[in-house]
Amino acid sequence: MKALRFTAWKTKPSLQEVERPSPAPGEVLLKVAGAGACHSDVAVYDQFDESTVGPQLAPAYTLGHETAGWIEEVGEGVLGLTKGDAYLVYGPIGCGHCAACSRGQDTYCENAAQTPFLASGLGKDGGMAEYMTVPARNLIPLGDADPVAAAPLADAGLTPYHAIKLALDKLQGGGKTALVIGLGGLGQIAVQVLKATTAATVIATDMKPEAMELAGRRGAVTVSGGDAQAERIRELTGGRGVDAVFDFVGLTPTIQLAQKVVAKQGRITVVGIAGGPVQWDFYSNPYEAELTNTYWGTIEELHELAALYRDGHIEVDVTRFSLDHALEAYEHLEKGTLLGRAVVVPHPDAPAAATDAVREQVAMGV
Amino acid sequence: MKALRFTAWKTKPSLQEVERPSPAPGEVLLKVAGAGACHSDVAVYDQFDESTVGPQLAPAYTLGHETAGWIEEVGEGVLGLTKGDAYLVYGPIGCGHCAACSRGQDTYCENAAQTPFLASGLGKDGGMAEYMTVPARNLIPLGDADPVAAAPLADAGLTPYHAIKLALDKLQGGGKTALVIGLGGLGQIAVQVLKATTAATVIATDMKPEAMELAGRRGAVTVSGGDAQAERIRELTGGRGVDAVFDFVGLTPTIQLAQKVVAKQGRITVVGIAGGPVQWDFYSNPYEAELTNTYWGTIEELHELAALYRDGHIEVDVTRFSLDHALEAYEHLEKGTLLGRAVVVPHPDAPAAATDAVREQVAMGV
Amino acid sequence: MKALRFTAWKTKPSLQEVERPSPAPGEVLLKVAGAGACHSDVAVYDQFDESTVGPQLAPAYTLGHETAGWIEEVGEGVLGLTKGDAYLVYGPIGCGHCAACSRGQDTYCENAAQTPFLASGLGKDGGMAEYMTVPARNLIPLGDADPVAAAPLADAGLTPYHAIKLALDKLQGGGKTALVIGLGGLGQIAVQVLKATTAATVIATDMKPEAMELAGRRGAVTVSGGDAQAERIRELTGGRGVDAVFDFVGLTPTIQLAQKVVAKQGRITVVGIAGGPVQWDFYSNPYEAELTNTYWGTIEELHELAALYRDGHIEVDVTRFSLDHALEAYEHLEKGTLLGRAVVVPHPDAPAAATDAVREQVAMGV
Amino acid sequence: MKALRFTAWKTKPSLQEVERPSPAPGEVLLKVAGAGACHSDVAVYDQFDESTVGPQLAPAYTLGHETAGWIEEVGEGVLGLTKGDAYLVYGPIGCGHCAACSRGQDTYCENAAQTPFLASGLGKDGGMAEYMTVPARNLIPLGDADPVAAAPLADAGLTPYHAIKLALDKLQGGGKTALVIGLGGLGQIAVQVLKATTAATVIATDMKPEAMELAGRRGAVTVSGGDAQAERIRELTGGRGVDAVFDFVGLTPTIQLAQKVVAKQGRITVVGIAGGPVQWDFYSNPYEAELTNTYWGTIEELHELAALYRDGHIEVDVTRFSLDHALEAYEHLEKGTLLGRAVVVPHPDAPAAATDAVREQVAMGV
Repeated sequence: MKALRFTAWKTKPSLQEVERPSPAPGEVLLKVAGAGACHSDVAVYDQFDESTVGPQLAPAYTLGHETAGWIEEVGEGVLGLTKGDAYLVYGPIGCGHCAACSRGQDTYCENAAQTPFLASGLGKDGGMAEYMTVPARNLIPLGDADPVAAAPLADAGLTPYHAIKLALDKLQGGGKTALVIGLGGLGQIAVQVLKATTAATVIATDMKPEAMELAGRRGAVTVSGGDAQAERIRELTGGRGVDAVFDFVGLTPTIQLAQKVVAKQGRITVVGIAGGPVQWDFYSNPYEAELTNTYWGTIEELHELAALYRDGHIEVDVTRFSLDHALEAYEHLEKGTLLGRAVVVPHPDAPAAATDAVREQVAMGV
Repeated sequence: MKALRFTAWKTKPSLQEVERPSPAPGEVLLKVAGAGACHSDVAVYDQFDESTVGPQLAPAYTLGHETAGWIEEVGEGVLGLTKGDAYLVYGPIGCGHCAACSRGQDTYCENAAQTPFLASGLGKDGGMAEYMTVPARNLIPLGDADPVAAAPLADAGLTPYHAIKLALDKLQGGGKTALVIGLGGLGQIAVQVLKATTAATVIATDMKPEAMELAGRRGAVTVSGGDAQAERIRELTGGRGVDAVFDFVGLTPTIQLAQKVVAKQGRITVVGIAGGPVQWDFYSNPYEAELTNTYWGTIEELHELAALYRDGHIEVDVTRFSLDHALEAYEHLEKGTLLGRAVVVPHPDAPAAATDAVREQVAMGV
Repeated sequence: MKALRFTAWKTKPSLQEVERPSPAPGEVLLKVAGAGACHSDVAVYDQFDESTVGPQLAPAYTLGHETAGWIEEVGEGVLGLTKGDAYLVYGPIGCGHCAACSRGQDTYCENAAQTPFLASGLGKDGGMAEYMTVPARNLIPLGDADPVAAAPLADAGLTPYHAIKLALDKLQGGGKTALVIGLGGLGQIAVQVLKATTAATVIATDMKPEAMELAGRRGAVTVSGGDAQAERIRELTGGRGVDAVFDFVGLTPTIQLAQKVVAKQGRITVVGIAGGPVQWDFYSNPYEAELTNTYWGTIEELHELAALYRDGHIEVDVTRFSLDHALEAYEHLEKGTLLGRAVVVPHPDAPAAATDAVREQVAMGV
Repeated sequence: MKALRFTAWKTKPSLQEVERPSPAPGEVLLKVAGAGACHSDVAVYDQFDESTVGPQLAPAYTLGHETAGWIEEVGEGVLGLTKGDAYLVYGPIGCGHCAACSRGQDTYCENAAQTPFLASGLGKDGGMAEYMTVPARNLIPLGDADPVAAAPLADAGLTPYHAIKLALDKLQGGGKTALVIGLGGLGQIAVQVLKATTAATVIATDMKPEAMELAGRRGAVTVSGGDAQAERIRELTGGRGVDAVFDFVGLTPTIQLAQKVVAKQGRITVVGIAGGPVQWDFYSNPYEAELTNTYWGTIEELHELAALYRDGHIEVDVTRFSLDHALEAYEHLEKGTLLGRAVVVPHPDAPAAATDAVREQVAMGV
């Protein structure tokens, strides 16, 4: 079968012919419906090497940590799963027996230093291939929903969903406000999750007018940048400030904006990994406003997010590429020319469930 | 001024001429915009006497514990309130200095046995009059929203809102379901609060088709009664059962329905006071499903609910009556001929803010 | 090796020679330090048959679902575990890929109807043997703490710990009270967990004076039965009622006691499975008091409980029996002649860590 | 009567003869048992002026925002309070009708800019006098516990209690750790509250050996400063890091220590107002560790803290001064020569309840 392989540090991935894997006990073989291309893949093949990251990420392996597909074959000891059913793949794989893994939060595995890989597609063969093997525990049922558009939910969806879940006690009930800074793939899903799961007024900001426009159609109140930005946001909160800010950028100016507008007892979650530094002291933020970051999410949260998707609360903005055009997907990603997420579709002729949740912005293969 | 007075046990209230009150220190005088008629008023004047209830409810006083109005006069020591602004009235008034009152939950006042009255309109002069006095602490700002339709929020809104807030941890995130049994005034607001504040699938049931139809328009999935009712509800939850059931009736069959459909780790809140008994034992409900009741709510929750109303998330179904026709409002209530809530409007010519949130089902004065 | 086997319905288990198992991929082989005898084992071999329970519990298998031991051999693909280290075994084993299993709550597996067994020792070979195999995921590190006395924590400890965790929001901070009804193995651990994790006044009651005395030494305020029992308990709460009641009996009179003493906004958790029925209606309990049951617990909670044990917060009352005397352990259990838990010790000469947490009430082998 | 008055900016307070006040409606007159001297008083009379703080703090008034006493006289409309009973005073007084005040959190009053004062003793006459008036709502019952030693609970106790309540979800159950940085009056109470309300291992650090020794006797594991401090703390957590850090200093090095030792998903609460700046970026703290500050607490929390004190969970370290020696109390405070809190006792001959909770470190009047 064909697979997009990361074969050496600082080297672009390449399409190769590899053997189709077999599921080990406890695993299934998935026929890949869609595999999302993610910025962290670019970091993996373009920026990292053995001096900057651990051996878990060392080549060679198939990329793709945002995958959905249909069960093709069920390994020994796996019960209750049926060939042909569609599933989303939870990427992270920890030691499996620490307290964090026991609650399905492999991202915070206490034995991470000893694990052979980080996740499917990050050290272990991922979804940019015709088939992949997945531990049964990492499967999330998709029912009738389209698995192609679902693929990015595994990371670009789960990351904001997890951040929002952790901030939900700030947003419960009436009269609350949330702010989404950065309206790319993650930010657009954040807007929809907030609209679906809370009654908060959702304020959103981005530098791209078309991203703002899309967020506006999804129910956000959009605010442009510029000098009056913080003031305008405060106004929209009736002067109280924002109860929960989600910064999908993470540069110094975006975190500073968050600090300016957050409410007393509010929360700033920096999701974007730009790493911009800010100053913090006792007087630099309103009383009891929390400043924190976040990383990916849990298996159970992906079950919940998939339910939101299946119930029609979330549409994922995707551009589909065939596996042969997978490298083009990464080129678009590097150039930032796509509004939504690039999804590689290894079996374009597979009869996927049609769904209104799919917004096709660019034609197949571009 | 005119006021609808409850003057003696087992006696219908009567419209009387009384002196317009003056606000004591810490109080305001409110020009009444609307006062909701509630079933508990009927219990007060029709069923109770000194042998069945405490002295707090003993006549004589003006009825009306669901009130909204405009500030007419501000008492000594009250700051930050402006004549003409619209406010909703939190009814309950406890001792003011126990732990429950300190958190704005006067309903659970630890010195309730010693208080002279229960609430505005329940032992103390209420809103079925041209003017009433209210402790500043019990005022909830309404901004530009219509205070006439807002009046029932004080009880028929706050009671379901409080019940839902206490069940919210069962309904957070994706893939959850709620069931509303009984779609009168409280149930209709429950449906809207659930839709606004959660992503849960809201299932609703009632014996009146028009109530079902209205709930359906508000986003509920409606299920009729009959033999297959429990089975149909379970189906809608994918077999998992309902995460949070709200029973606004409280008869034996409705609580039993709740017991049949509730999920493991779910919650049954009986709001309706019909008092129907059920049996409970270790094996009668799914593991960790909670069975509980509830009563009214807190001041802060009324602030939150008013914010939902101001933000357009809730419309209140009201039928307006002039103060001269107030007794007719209670007659309709006793007969059950109104779908929504009867609201007495002492100043029909006052320029209330127009709002889409108001659904006028019957003409003024009927 | 020797193992205590349940071989046929309605038949006492028997000690048999069986082959020592080998760990499958993802499993370890445990050299058993201690295996607790539990009342549910008696139900399994004495009361159940194919007409009353599912095929998951059908014979034949080795009993013992409360086990601790030392790692003897590590199966393929298991990382970070070392031969000789002591671990406690989380018993339940679900499908492994539903939402409940993903969060380590196999007790509520959504595919339970399809699983081949319920738990180690309940359908699958358990700990009443010299060795057993355990999925790595089900292992809880014990560090230097004595694994023999730890064994009952797996069920007699985890069940009350889980019940208390779910009630913890009722017991946070100062001025709270808890009531423990029934001071057998589970109740004694409940008293200690409550004392360690909360500042609540812990009230305890039992019919056995020596159980009361032991609870008293552990910091509980004990109250005898009799007419004034409920009144005396209410007095101890300053009249407010009990914030969290844990009933480890579950008979009608004990649940009724709970209903009489629970506080407004309190919680009654029935843990004991006696199945006594009570009546519930809107007026039968204080406002917002919750009535619920509970079942076992999660993997992560067993990590937390083991930490309490390792930190010296909990002592487990055990009587040790050799594997040859295992049937005597069950005889004592059936007769109720032991205050604490009977633990079968297959390797009595193994150098277990000495610990003050062990209270040896009866000599080895009695 | 005598009162310690703050009469002009940048001027030491002076003992003056003033008229004994009368309680207004809703108030009580308190005979002062004890009034704690606080560092913020020094800021008020020594550092601030009209250019740096709002008019709420402008002279002249009686100091003392940590007060307890006995009811001497009950104002109109106050029910359920009895002359002679001992009460603690919640200091903050907001507008009384915003959402924050409605839940008893006057510290975050939404109309703070318009209020005439901040608290009893901060803009309004406080407890450094023979008598003071207090709104009934601000009274917390002390029962038989000593009101003199209780006085500092109103601020030096409530502030850490509130900070701990907000961090309690990080510390629930077994296996958790807390770190207290700075073991003055607030830190010592923090250690005791943590020991009473959680099973966490409490680590504590301070530069004064006698403060460390005292915390050690209260159950803390103490760690000295120096190069290995962070490493030693991490070791005590088994390498996981600290789940909740409370920094009662707030200088750059103490916050940096917190950042070094906090666990993934942990929480740093800076309580001390030294204002030291630190840098924060996405990579500067473990995933999901929260950084926040805090300020004073709520009325209900003071009820809870008083219950902990009445139940013997907390001893307050106080040095008593007569009202005539009140200025000496502030001198000791400014010099830092007292380990615990200085409490001014206007009625030294009043028969206070004796209690083991009182640690008298220095003789009356020094």
